Amino acid sequence: MSLGKTILGLFGWLLLCFASAAGGAVFMPGEWYASLHKPAWNPPGWIFGPAWTTLYAMMAVAAWLVWQRGGFAAQRRPLGLFLAQLALNALWTPLFFGLRQPGMAFAEILVLWLAIGATLLAFRRVSRAAAWLLVPYLAWVSFAAALNGTIWRLNP
Amino acid sequence: MSLGKTILGLFGWLLLCFASAAGGAVFMPGEWYASLHKPAWNPPGWIFGPAWTTLYAMMAVAAWLVWQRGGFAAQRRPLGLFLAQLALNALWTPLFFGLRQPGMAFAEILVLWLAIGATLLAFRRVSRAAAWLLVPYLAWVSFAAALNGTIWRLNP
Repeated sequence: MSLGKTILGLFGWLLLCFASAAGGAVFMPGEWYASLHKPAWNPPGWIFGPAWTTLYAMMAVAAWLVWQRGGFAAQRRPLGLFLAQLALNALWTPLFFGLRQPGMAFAEILVLWLAIGATLLAFRRVSRAAAWLLVPYLAWVSFAAALNGTIWRLNP
Repeated sequence: MSLGKTILGLFGWLLLCFASAAGGAVFMPGEWYASLHKPAWNPPGWIFGPAWTTLYAMMAVAAWLVWQRGGFAAQRRPLGLFLAQLALNALWTPLFFGLRQPGMAFAEILVLWLAIGATLLAFRRVSRAAAWLLVPYLAWVSFAAALNGTIWRLNP
């Protein structure tokens, strides 16, 4: 793979990951979210923006590392899992903030969690660095799932 | 809403819809898809590109029409449903062509079909034109679901 294509690929993956985040960014957590009962360990709101920006950048780099090993033809399964988890990630915000369905969003985030886990395991067989880049993402989604589940339980 | 913002909005919706299609376009239906048993009514492969391009453009215009009636704040539910169906749409290709799991993709396309139906009904309350713009999309996904299900059954 030429250096030009490699660098273009990095921008492609970054663009794809941040585009999938854009669909979520339109729903601002406003009054409704503020009015929900939350657990004591709920983090301050300002953390989510920088956290997700970092995690999207890390996951784009991870996919880019795997993609470099022969492109989609050679890495069909790991990159298929990655794109599936990216779509599931994009699905969560419309369910939680768009439809205001914390229960549905909780069920969905559990599927997302499994998809990220499967992606991480598939990436590990191709690049250990790519797998490590997904560890903070999996940890954050574990935390987000616990928060989502608790908010659902606290606001019947 | 100013004319500038309205026009910018159209480009935003088109960009979002075509970006979500991009994740799918990376998996070219190659030898594997060609080798599958298909029903007699399977359409020629060249139809899918123009069909999806038209449908993505129509759904972007539909969302744009709804969005013009007060933006995300006023149209939270219909636009939430729309973004959810868009994410579910993006999920199908990695499942079918990425993971080569026609069964899983079939289960997923049924959820997508329900989400498009719910979006269409929600759009109808806001703009009849927007609802009509989704009718060919729902019809095509009905057809695609039947094709997916038949391919799954024919290739155990």
